[in-house]
Amino acid sequence: MPLNSFDVMRIPTSAPGDVSGLLALISSGALEPQSILAILSKTEGNGGVNDFTREYAVVALCNALAPRLGLAPREVESRIAFVMSGGTEGVLSPHLTVFARRPDVVGANVGEPRLSVGIAKTRDFLPEEIGRDAQIEETAKAVAAAMRDARIDAASDVHFVQIKCPLLTSERVTEAAARGRRVVTASGYASMGYSRGASALGVARALGEIGADVGEAQLMKDWSRYSLVASSSAGIELMHNVVILIGNSRSSASPLRIGHAVMQDAIDLQAVMEAFESAGLSALDSRSQDRLVNIFAKAEASPNGAIRGLRHTMLDDSDINATRHARATVGGLIAGVAGTGAVYVSGGAEHQGPARGGPVAVIARA
Amino acid sequence: MPLNSFDVMRIPTSAPGDVSGLLALISSGALEPQSILAILSKTEGNGGVNDFTREYAVVALCNALAPRLGLAPREVESRIAFVMSGGTEGVLSPHLTVFARRPDVVGANVGEPRLSVGIAKTRDFLPEEIGRDAQIEETAKAVAAAMRDARIDAASDVHFVQIKCPLLTSERVTEAAARGRRVVTASGYASMGYSRGASALGVARALGEIGADVGEAQLMKDWSRYSLVASSSAGIELMHNVVILIGNSRSSASPLRIGHAVMQDAIDLQAVMEAFESAGLSALDSRSQDRLVNIFAKAEASPNGAIRGLRHTMLDDSDINATRHARATVGGLIAGVAGTGAVYVSGGAEHQGPARGGPVAVIARA
Amino acid sequence: MPLNSFDVMRIPTSAPGDVSGLLALISSGALEPQSILAILSKTEGNGGVNDFTREYAVVALCNALAPRLGLAPREVESRIAFVMSGGTEGVLSPHLTVFARRPDVVGANVGEPRLSVGIAKTRDFLPEEIGRDAQIEETAKAVAAAMRDARIDAASDVHFVQIKCPLLTSERVTEAAARGRRVVTASGYASMGYSRGASALGVARALGEIGADVGEAQLMKDWSRYSLVASSSAGIELMHNVVILIGNSRSSASPLRIGHAVMQDAIDLQAVMEAFESAGLSALDSRSQDRLVNIFAKAEASPNGAIRGLRHTMLDDSDINATRHARATVGGLIAGVAGTGAVYVSGGAEHQGPARGGPVAVIARA
Amino acid sequence: MPLNSFDVMRIPTSAPGDVSGLLALISSGALEPQSILAILSKTEGNGGVNDFTREYAVVALCNALAPRLGLAPREVESRIAFVMSGGTEGVLSPHLTVFARRPDVVGANVGEPRLSVGIAKTRDFLPEEIGRDAQIEETAKAVAAAMRDARIDAASDVHFVQIKCPLLTSERVTEAAARGRRVVTASGYASMGYSRGASALGVARALGEIGADVGEAQLMKDWSRYSLVASSSAGIELMHNVVILIGNSRSSASPLRIGHAVMQDAIDLQAVMEAFESAGLSALDSRSQDRLVNIFAKAEASPNGAIRGLRHTMLDDSDINATRHARATVGGLIAGVAGTGAVYVSGGAEHQGPARGGPVAVIARA
Repeated sequence: MPLNSFDVMRIPTSAPGDVSGLLALISSGALEPQSILAILSKTEGNGGVNDFTREYAVVALCNALAPRLGLAPREVESRIAFVMSGGTEGVLSPHLTVFARRPDVVGANVGEPRLSVGIAKTRDFLPEEIGRDAQIEETAKAVAAAMRDARIDAASDVHFVQIKCPLLTSERVTEAAARGRRVVTASGYASMGYSRGASALGVARALGEIGADVGEAQLMKDWSRYSLVASSSAGIELMHNVVILIGNSRSSASPLRIGHAVMQDAIDLQAVMEAFESAGLSALDSRSQDRLVNIFAKAEASPNGAIRGLRHTMLDDSDINATRHARATVGGLIAGVAGTGAVYVSGGAEHQGPARGGPVAVIARA
Repeated sequence: MPLNSFDVMRIPTSAPGDVSGLLALISSGALEPQSILAILSKTEGNGGVNDFTREYAVVALCNALAPRLGLAPREVESRIAFVMSGGTEGVLSPHLTVFARRPDVVGANVGEPRLSVGIAKTRDFLPEEIGRDAQIEETAKAVAAAMRDARIDAASDVHFVQIKCPLLTSERVTEAAARGRRVVTASGYASMGYSRGASALGVARALGEIGADVGEAQLMKDWSRYSLVASSSAGIELMHNVVILIGNSRSSASPLRIGHAVMQDAIDLQAVMEAFESAGLSALDSRSQDRLVNIFAKAEASPNGAIRGLRHTMLDDSDINATRHARATVGGLIAGVAGTGAVYVSGGAEHQGPARGGPVAVIARA
Repeated sequence: MPLNSFDVMRIPTSAPGDVSGLLALISSGALEPQSILAILSKTEGNGGVNDFTREYAVVALCNALAPRLGLAPREVESRIAFVMSGGTEGVLSPHLTVFARRPDVVGANVGEPRLSVGIAKTRDFLPEEIGRDAQIEETAKAVAAAMRDARIDAASDVHFVQIKCPLLTSERVTEAAARGRRVVTASGYASMGYSRGASALGVARALGEIGADVGEAQLMKDWSRYSLVASSSAGIELMHNVVILIGNSRSSASPLRIGHAVMQDAIDLQAVMEAFESAGLSALDSRSQDRLVNIFAKAEASPNGAIRGLRHTMLDDSDINATRHARATVGGLIAGVAGTGAVYVSGGAEHQGPARGGPVAVIARA
Repeated sequence: MPLNSFDVMRIPTSAPGDVSGLLALISSGALEPQSILAILSKTEGNGGVNDFTREYAVVALCNALAPRLGLAPREVESRIAFVMSGGTEGVLSPHLTVFARRPDVVGANVGEPRLSVGIAKTRDFLPEEIGRDAQIEETAKAVAAAMRDARIDAASDVHFVQIKCPLLTSERVTEAAARGRRVVTASGYASMGYSRGASALGVARALGEIGADVGEAQLMKDWSRYSLVASSSAGIELMHNVVILIGNSRSSASPLRIGHAVMQDAIDLQAVMEAFESAGLSALDSRSQDRLVNIFAKAEASPNGAIRGLRHTMLDDSDINATRHARATVGGLIAGVAGTGAVYVSGGAEHQGPARGGPVAVIARA
């Protein structure tokens, strides 16, 4: 069976609409447009309900790639999985991470599992399905499809499952009400948490981390149910879930591999260093930093208002949302280890790792 | 010559007006009210112009200590140096650090310099003096006085000089204008930077880090002029500078010592670890964390908009001030090493360490 | 039966802790400390969970009044009803409104009902009682007591009922959870809405605006149930409800009277003008503005996301809370009619007037 | 000489990228794409440095109009003048205002001046030219060109001059520094004020409101120099100034006319009513509201920190920028008179009307 080869490229951006770095890679021949499977991006909005930088970035990427793929701009979104995560607080630096797949590569796997990526998406949800069982179930199906797409058989070879999921706006709430349906919450900001949490439980179900009996009754209530590899981001720009599943596979000829660890809380420096080591890097060694491709982590304000017994004030701040605080502070820690602010730290880790903490994955050149 | 003994206590607070932890220490006999020299605090406001948590905390502390010192509340401020630094973004946890001095201790210095603290203050400034030569000069004089107070002779034994300095408000700007005087900037938020910067140049001049020719002409312009040990915080609640100078002295019988390092940028994990080691601790060793008393650091959004060549967005964010971003992100890194969020990270490092970075000092039990 | 006389004074403040205007009125003999019944204040915080300007203002007022009342600072709060409403966005100007009552006045009622004020308070609530039936019931009882205190018999003579009510913090949520109790919401900001809404339903029940069958089942759901004269503000500084009830009574010898109207939405200029006229003033006549004592209004972001069919963006703004938007924008309209920014506009009008709008009351010299 | 006919259409938008209302008007035949001269828009960003909704809206409009104009998307911007003003705080509702011109209309002027619009633009500025004499001069030239384009001879027939102008970002400041040039301010947010102010002085110079001797020496210092009809908005998306000049002309066959008044401060209800009447409408008459096309106003936080002698807190708020406060609060007043939130209120009125106030213009059907 022929192998897939995967490459992952990290490209700094100068603004949400900046595609110049991507186009330069294409022009130089380093990146074949047809090979682009997915683009994960950190954009510089507030990461909240009215963060339009995510949508704008997708529009700009579609406009740029459409002529190079022979597609209309709208068709690009069906072909490539886009996950734009808003919020580059603190030292975080806006950038794109491009995942490229070349199928049927001549060559052989080096004898150990190497980086492999699969994508899938769900159908569109109704507003009242967001943060409920329907979203959990459809996500679980999509995760299974993405595993097949990545040619990964064992859940233990899955190291990071990034989901993009929808949120509720005033308009969507009103639209559901007009049909006599109640949504899970009328608050747009709160709906982001429900949607991220339901998506994470969907991952956990697909990977066997929770049983089929865990569903919306546990959502946002029972924090002992979670996935150790799920990462979800909510955005205004879509009504379905997009799944990008990353792991290692013997069907891959990639020069890269991925590993992960789980932060127990927002100041878990040891876990960040472990994640580095799980990908074959040596934390605190600056030569290792050269082999780093990117880090992917979730940040969360501990829901009980304390970290290692000491109070934090993120949840009671009515000026800055807790997700912005969390990205800034966890971003500082991870950037310190990585030696760069161009890392992917996303806020809101509901059911993504243990309460207070979250997964952290590292892709590195082997 | 009899020795001074110094103790430093870190006390979590549940709100800006919370003095219960302080009073419990006094009741238990662990802290003698008469011995309190200075209180440094992280309060949970925005750290900006309209952060009244600093002023409120001082009022609460004065009210609580007045009967125990036999003073009126207003007199307490003349006796104890208060520095309230607003802003506990991210994992930072509100707390007080109390510096206590007992003079004429029977006993002997252990043969190596130990923690010693001195305090001083300047006269009140006029609004138009803030961020100008007058503030630099008066601060330099006060730093020299604080060194004498701490019985420290050599500048190399000074490891941290914390200054509390005033800021401009609309009212103060208008008052100066009514007298025909122009202030350095009409923006309250911008004035905080000027005041912090002038204070830091005052420290640098007193410690011989810059020559007497460096003054307001270089202020906020020539970032190559700075102090490696200055830390200044601006607040609405005073019109003079308060100086708390911390170092090691052979005149001290304290069980504590202080060391410091200098962060070259906001993600300089190595410098944070060095600071730990300079105080005799071993970074990444959790037993060392038990001997930690507190860390004191300055956080800054790199003024050129980039960290190690990659763009950050802190300076262009019109929703969250750069100082809030900086405290959150540097706080995350330092808390990761310290294993606690109850660390003193203060924003705005103008002329406090190299542009982009800042000093980080560690007090530990020897 | 002897009459009560009431006076109402509006005093600008220069900061949350500023009591100089109040003390000047006392020194001048214009205000007798013993006569102070209630103080309503607009303070310049964010009006959200972590707005400590409210608590700080109360501390400052208690410290200032205690020696003048021969009480300890803590006892002042039992004697005087304090309602601090945070948030002076836009043109709103921080100020105190002092309500003074002199009993047993020699003189006679002028033959028409005149301003009368009564106060009362509930017991402390448990965290899990906030936003539930217990809060509604206890508030209704306190409103009835305040009517008696104001010597007002008919609900139609009640024109404004201001309530100060508690909110939930992370700590309070955790404390309840430790006792096995679930609070109505874990979000501090959201709890403010529940608490305000339950308080308003309590007013409505006491005044016969809703039946006894309306309770927590309708709270935050059925917006057709409301009081036309309730105004509630949530704050971190208390755990009980404080009621200040204002109306007209023939038992009053006051030179003042109060009237009110109901804004149907946030741009209801006509209702603001009607409220002026209901108090005997002529809107758009600047001489009338001289007889104005103060205006009291509630501001709300229309919950369906639209005003007169056009979308607003207050509810979807993740940078600024909707209550801050609402105070700024309704404050602009009311200040335009009043000719001054020192008006009392408070945010969050859940069950206080029709959804989208809220009550607006005017006190004027007759 | 043949006449021009002008139409102005106000179109609500559901998001920054929403062009559906515009396309519906085109499809229905009500709007001829070739006739579009300018589009002024209120978009729902923060109106600050990192407000990308302005740029995104322009991209969306260009993409939508390009095929209908037979142009490439980038060419649309050269043909149509776009002014996107960010910030729909409070009751303000996001919308587009489309100005359409049909030349050589058969018909006659009705015997009185009617609405006429002209556009022009300057060359691109260097970062160091922003907020300096070069920007003032080039703007004055462009205003003169726009008057000719509008066929307006007398300055007294000019009622509103909208300018879109650039701002400084960290990158632009750094680029200038690399060439050895100092920009007027290193703060992106502050640069917006300089750019708006210089643009307004350019208008004032072109219309003879100030002499040629007034320039950068007076900019942001001498508030007695201003234009009564200038309105400028700064944005990240351009480096030149765009001018849209609106007045009445006998060369116009439009069914519309424009009038204006000048608000003396942010609560000047009388001026808003006067502006209505200057356009032939009757304020407070709801039938008049039906003939209203749109209102255009500038909002400003009074620079001396007070309105009619009472303190406001907009300038000292480190959580919300003063321009956001000002739009929300002035928007509330204007929407109250207009009966709709879909009005154009733009923040930052430096040299645009007297300090504290600003111009307010009304377009109405005659």
